[in-house]
Amino acid sequence: MNLRKTCTWALSALVVLPLFASANIDIHEAPSRPKNMIIMIGDGMGPAYTSAYRYYQNNPDTEEIEQTVFDRLLVGMASTYPARQSGYVTDSAASATALATGVKSYNGAISVDVDKRPLTTIMQMAKARGMATGVAVTAQVNHATPAAFLAHNESRRNYDAIAQSYLSSGADVILGGGQKYFPEDLLKQFSAKDYQHISQLSQLDSLTQGKALGLFAEVQLPWVIDQQDSTQLSLLTQKALELLSQNPNGFVLLVEGSLIDWAGHNNDIATAMAEMHGFANAIEVVEQYVRANPDTLMVVTADHNTGGLSIGANGEYAWDTALLKGIQASPASIAELAIAIDDWQPLVSQKLGFELKAEELQSLGNARMQGQVALDTALKQLIDNRSFTGWTTSGHTGVDVQVFAAGPAADLFKGNQDNTDIADKMISLLPRAKQTLEVISKDNK
Amino acid sequence: MNLRKTCTWALSALVVLPLFASANIDIHEAPSRPKNMIIMIGDGMGPAYTSAYRYYQNNPDTEEIEQTVFDRLLVGMASTYPARQSGYVTDSAASATALATGVKSYNGAISVDVDKRPLTTIMQMAKARGMATGVAVTAQVNHATPAAFLAHNESRRNYDAIAQSYLSSGADVILGGGQKYFPEDLLKQFSAKDYQHISQLSQLDSLTQGKALGLFAEVQLPWVIDQQDSTQLSLLTQKALELLSQNPNGFVLLVEGSLIDWAGHNNDIATAMAEMHGFANAIEVVEQYVRANPDTLMVVTADHNTGGLSIGANGEYAWDTALLKGIQASPASIAELAIAIDDWQPLVSQKLGFELKAEELQSLGNARMQGQVALDTALKQLIDNRSFTGWTTSGHTGVDVQVFAAGPAADLFKGNQDNTDIADKMISLLPRAKQTLEVISKDNK
Repeated sequence: MNLRKTCTWALSALVVLPLFASANIDIHEAPSRPKNMIIMIGDGMGPAYTSAYRYYQNNPDTEEIEQTVFDRLLVGMASTYPARQSGYVTDSAASATALATGVKSYNGAISVDVDKRPLTTIMQMAKARGMATGVAVTAQVNHATPAAFLAHNESRRNYDAIAQSYLSSGADVILGGGQKYFPEDLLKQFSAKDYQHISQLSQLDSLTQGKALGLFAEVQLPWVIDQQDSTQLSLLTQKALELLSQNPNGFVLLVEGSLIDWAGHNNDIATAMAEMHGFANAIEVVEQYVRANPDTLMVVTADHNTGGLSIGANGEYAWDTALLKGIQASPASIAELAIAIDDWQPLVSQKLGFELKAEELQSLGNARMQGQVALDTALKQLIDNRSFTGWTTSGHTGVDVQVFAAGPAADLFKGNQDNTDIADKMISLLPRAKQTLEVISKDNK
Repeated sequence: MNLRKTCTWALSALVVLPLFASANIDIHEAPSRPKNMIIMIGDGMGPAYTSAYRYYQNNPDTEEIEQTVFDRLLVGMASTYPARQSGYVTDSAASATALATGVKSYNGAISVDVDKRPLTTIMQMAKARGMATGVAVTAQVNHATPAAFLAHNESRRNYDAIAQSYLSSGADVILGGGQKYFPEDLLKQFSAKDYQHISQLSQLDSLTQGKALGLFAEVQLPWVIDQQDSTQLSLLTQKALELLSQNPNGFVLLVEGSLIDWAGHNNDIATAMAEMHGFANAIEVVEQYVRANPDTLMVVTADHNTGGLSIGANGEYAWDTALLKGIQASPASIAELAIAIDDWQPLVSQKLGFELKAEELQSLGNARMQGQVALDTALKQLIDNRSFTGWTTSGHTGVDVQVFAAGPAADLFKGNQDNTDIADKMISLLPRAKQTLEVISKDNK
C-alpha cells in the first residue's frame, strides 16, 4: 500500500467530509434550504463525455491526472427514459420536460403531459413565489431544453410558437441564440414588456438591471472550437447571475451547454470536447458563485447521452488526447475552407495540427471531390481513427447520466435517481408559496 | 511528524464520523468500522451495462420501471486509467491491481508495480491480521482479476505460475473455473495444505468448514444464458460467505462476475445481459448478508467498460428488451447447433424466440455456409439490428465506472474517486494490525 497516498487521502477526506454535500461550502454558514437554484444541463453529456473531458484536459507534463469540475461535484446518477410510449431512449424535449416539471412525457413534448395538457414548470412555480427566472444557453433560446422550462407546446418543432410564448413566461433573463425566431414585431412586444434587447456579446456590459433578451446568433452560437474561445457560455452565465441575483426573493436559472449534443449527433469528437470545455467553464463560474453565496444550490446533469461515444475503439486500448487538443477548427469549417481553395492539403494539415500520411491525403482528396459534406465526414473519420474514438449512433442512447451538485441540500441528489426526481427535489426546495407571498407583500408596503 | 501515526489518527477519526446512507442498514446497529469486507467486481460492467440491465429486467406489465440492486446501492463513480505508460484505457490486470493494492500499474500486471516489484494486496494485509480471505468468480480462478488479489506476476498470461502461486496465498476459499490450470500434482499440494477440493457445484454442500478449492469447469463457467440458470455465482458466493464467516477475526472476499466482460468482448448483448443477471443475483446474496450482518461492508464496482455498448444505435431512439429477453441460448451455441443439422431454420428461430424475415434467413444461410464463427457473428449482428444495440470495439473503453456500497463506512465511497482510492479506503478500514494480533493471541490462550 502507498501509505503516504492513503494518508493524504484520509487527511483530505477529514477536511472535506464535514463539507461533503456542499463542496467547499461551510455548512455552518449555509442554510439548509437554498434561496437561489441553478440547474445546469450538458445536453447529450453522458458519462463517456465527462471521463473523456478529464483525459482531454489532462496536463501531460504532470504525473497525476488532474481532476475536473465534474470530478469535484459528482454526487449521483439519473435515469433518463421518457414516458412509456416513447420507449427507453429519450429526446431532449421529454427529458427537459422531466427536469422542468417532474413528469415524464413523450419524445417531442415541451412541458405537456402524454395527453398534451400543460404541466406547471419549476420556473412558473418560482415566478408564483416572486422569484426571478432565467435561461442562458448556447442553442437558440427556443430549443427543446430551455423551451421546456419557459413554455408549453405539443411539439419542440413549433419554434415560432415557442418563441412567441416566451412573452408570457415572465422570465427575467433569456440569453442564447435564435435571432431568426424573433422577428421585429415580436422583439417590439418584448420591448413593450420592458425587456432590453441585445444581439452582441459585447453589449452584455450594457445590461445592469431589469429584464433582458439577448440573442447572439441566427440559430445556435458558434462552435467553441471555431472561436478558439471557450468563454461564451461563461459570459452569459455570469451576466444572468448578476441580473437575477438582484431579486430579493431569489432566483431559478437554467444554464445549458447545448451544443455538446449537436457535436455528438455529428459524431465530432474534437468539436464535442471543445463544447465540453465551454460548459465546464460555465460550471466553474457557477461553482464560484455558490462559494461566494452559500444560500445558492447548483445541480448539474445531462438530459441524455448522445452518439454512443467511447474512449477507445476498434480493439485499441488507447485514446489520443494530444492529437485532439491540437485540432484548431471543427471538421465542418475545415471542410468549408478546403473546398474553397486549390492548395487545400497544407491548410487541412495545419488546422488538424498533425502531419497527414499519403493514404490519408488520398482518402481526403477523394472525399473532397464529392463535396463539402463528404469531406467533413472523411475528416471526422480520420480524427476518430487517429484518436481511437468510437460512436454507435447519430442519435441518443439510454445510459444513465451523472448528477453533480453543491450548495444547500446538495446531498439530496446523491446516489441513483430518476430525472423526474431531480425536478421533484428542486421543486421541494422552493420556498413555501404562502410564506413568500407574505414576505413580498410586506416588502411592498 | 510521524506520518504513520498521523495517518492512523486520521483514518480512525474518519470512520467515527456520522454515516449518512448505508443503503438499507440501520445505522444505529452498525459499527463504524466493518469486521468483514466484500468487494464485488463486474468485469467490464460500464455504466451502459447497469442501465441496460434495468430496462432488460423491467416488467412490461407494470407502469413503473423497477429499480435494480444497482440502483439501490449506487454511491459514486471511479476512474479506471492504468499507469501512465499504458495510456488511458486499462485492462483487467492493471485495474484489478489498482483495486487490490491501491497502486496503478501497467496493463498486464498482476499486483506488481511498473518496475515489476510485488505490491502488497489487501488479501495479504487481511491475512496478516488473522482474517480469512477468498475469491468466488465465474472465469478461471487464476484469471486476471482474482489473480491480482491472490498473486503477483509480471504477466496475466502466466496462468500456470499464477495457479501454482495460489498455494502460498493463504486464501481460505477459491471458487470458480480453471481445472486445466490445476493438474493432479498441484491439487495434491493443495490437499497437503488442508484444502478440500471439489469439481461439481452439487458438491458445494459437502463444504461446511475449513479451506476449499472448487474448480467447476475446465476454463470459465458456462454462460448463464446457455444454462438458463442464473444462480451459479450466487451459490459460490453463498458458500464463500458461509465458510469465511467462521473466522472470528473477520474476512475479505472478492466476488467477480467475470463473464460480463467476455460477452462484451464478443459484442454479444443477449449473453451479456444474462451474465449481468447472474452477477446481480450474487450482489443480492451479499446485500442480504450485509442486512443480516451489520458489521459487513460491501463495495461493488467494475474494473473498466467493455465493448462500447450503447442502448440504442444507428440513429434509432429505441431498445428492444422484449426481444432480448426471449433469446434462449447464446449466439455461439445456436451457431454450433445450427451448423450440425440440415433443418436449421426452425431451430434458430425457436432459440432466438422471434420469427425471422426472409432476408434475415438468407443472410444467416450465407453466413452458415462460411462456418460456425461466421454464423455466430451474423446472429449477433441480427440481434443488434433488431434490438438497436450498439458496440464500438472488441476491447475496453475508458469511461468511468460506478461504485455501489452498503454497510459500515459505505459513505466513504460516495462521489468521484479513482480505482486506487477504492483500495486505499478498504485497506484503511482493515483492523489495525497490532491490535488484532493481540486479540488473536488472547483467543489462542
